[in-house]
Amino acid sequence: MIDRAVAGRDQPATTLLGPGDDAAVVRAPDGAVVASTDMLVQGRHFRLDWSSPEQVGRKAVAQNGADIVAMGAWPTSFLVAIGCPPTTPVAVTDALTAGIWAEVAEFDAGVIGGDMVQAEQLVVSITVLGDLGGHAPVLRSGARPGDQVAVAGRLGWSAAGLAVLLAELDGFAELIAAHKVPRPPYRSGPIAARAGATGMTDVSDGLVADLGHMCTASGVAVDLDSALLEPGPELAAAAEALGADALDWVLTGGEDHALVATFPADVPLPEGWRRIGSVLAGEGVLVDGRSRAGGGGWQSFD
Amino acid sequence: MIDRAVAGRDQPATTLLGPGDDAAVVRAPDGAVVASTDMLVQGRHFRLDWSSPEQVGRKAVAQNGADIVAMGAWPTSFLVAIGCPPTTPVAVTDALTAGIWAEVAEFDAGVIGGDMVQAEQLVVSITVLGDLGGHAPVLRSGARPGDQVAVAGRLGWSAAGLAVLLAELDGFAELIAAHKVPRPPYRSGPIAARAGATGMTDVSDGLVADLGHMCTASGVAVDLDSALLEPGPELAAAAEALGADALDWVLTGGEDHALVATFPADVPLPEGWRRIGSVLAGEGVLVDGRSRAGGGGWQSFD
Repeated sequence: MIDRAVAGRDQPATTLLGPGDDAAVVRAPDGAVVASTDMLVQGRHFRLDWSSPEQVGRKAVAQNGADIVAMGAWPTSFLVAIGCPPTTPVAVTDALTAGIWAEVAEFDAGVIGGDMVQAEQLVVSITVLGDLGGHAPVLRSGARPGDQVAVAGRLGWSAAGLAVLLAELDGFAELIAAHKVPRPPYRSGPIAARAGATGMTDVSDGLVADLGHMCTASGVAVDLDSALLEPGPELAAAAEALGADALDWVLTGGEDHALVATFPADVPLPEGWRRIGSVLAGEGVLVDGRSRAGGGGWQSFD
Repeated sequence: MIDRAVAGRDQPATTLLGPGDDAAVVRAPDGAVVASTDMLVQGRHFRLDWSSPEQVGRKAVAQNGADIVAMGAWPTSFLVAIGCPPTTPVAVTDALTAGIWAEVAEFDAGVIGGDMVQAEQLVVSITVLGDLGGHAPVLRSGARPGDQVAVAGRLGWSAAGLAVLLAELDGFAELIAAHKVPRPPYRSGPIAARAGATGMTDVSDGLVADLGHMCTASGVAVDLDSALLEPGPELAAAAEALGADALDWVLTGGEDHALVATFPADVPLPEGWRRIGSVLAGEGVLVDGRSRAGGGGWQSFD
């Protein structure tokens, strides 16, 4: 199965030695490598009655890749460990690995190593390596009072898509697709780093939650401007059909893997980035100057 | 749980940015990084009624580390993803991560990233990164006719320990310990590389099987000298008690993660290495000049 997963695949120039030996060797041109790992478990992070195995593979790679671009780096290599029941059809593992390779191709990266073992449920564990291209990494801890807060990519689409699926609503294909396979704005990460971003993270747990982690790491507060977070027509339509609050999806929905970053006040925001608020002295995440932790009614606010 | 696993742990100088951001950053001094990944699943790769969680953690790190030293490199960093049932006691995950850190300390390496998620069974997926220290990697494909074949570390101990456990024999504590936590001869890998090893791999599937992979990759045959593979008194005693063939454990037992390498005929073998045979033109693994694939009676011979 491992042979099937790697046979005939092209490796990028960064792969000095691909799969097949005890370990792979990857170029790290600037003398440092960025690394992150994530594990996805069937029934918890994906459902095979909702998502195709190919979509699961794409999603697993996307969420790992987003962690690398959120440092301002670019993924070069992925290592993939898959656990699956012995009854798993070969077509399923083939589609899973095809999805992995398809998303890896978005980065012109390679799958350089892997392991495939028997397990009671499908488990996909991915490690991604990336290259900083000579730049310093952009950390969560770099936000400073006075900075602009900006976002690249979609907010709330995955959460809205999940709500549509759970309610078994017809339509809203774009939202459902966003839930099944996130489309993180990969190139916006290195672009932000080169434009002078002071802090950055990807939105995996929700905008308020992930900005909260940045505020804690940076020792600052963030004030979001709700007028700049206006949900688009897709979210508004789904919210109306479901009797839900579209702004709540925008503020608390995770898994879209948008990027949120802070920039000095005098820096013009680069392509793909839009302003959503400001960094202040203090702590925590405000919306329109008010903390909604106390009486705002968001269970997921933190 | 991730916080518990990384809090208060020292990071080596190679860790430029440890856990806590979207990704970690690791030094890669010579411009390349060696990487490998392995997944261990409860019930398949370990049993918690036989092994303590700490032993499972040590074993998971050991088998990953062995892949790096088998390239002649040295591990610098580990990324650890753990899936476990929600009912798992904190004492179990604490002991598991303590075992992981204990074995990682054998390399003066660091755990630089991780993920902990709910799963139906305990799954430990580890990725290891290593540094070549400016040397070329030692590949499986480098063996040449005329080379000496040499081994560092134990052969057959893990298989004998497993047989003892399965038979519920008393005694043989050293063999059982060898099965629960392999003790690969880590330093012998880089030592072999510096001494001029032409090819190298670690013995994870068994000496004959792993040498077979080397023969295929190198386009050569290997002739092992059974007189140089004489099982020691521990294996002999267990074989007598079980009515088993100790040489069979030596030739086919895996999981000790011994290192097997080839050296030019005129190279004095470095410390820790002992000669066990020769590289010939041809294909496959012979013992005392004869192929035992046909009538030798080893099911696992390949």
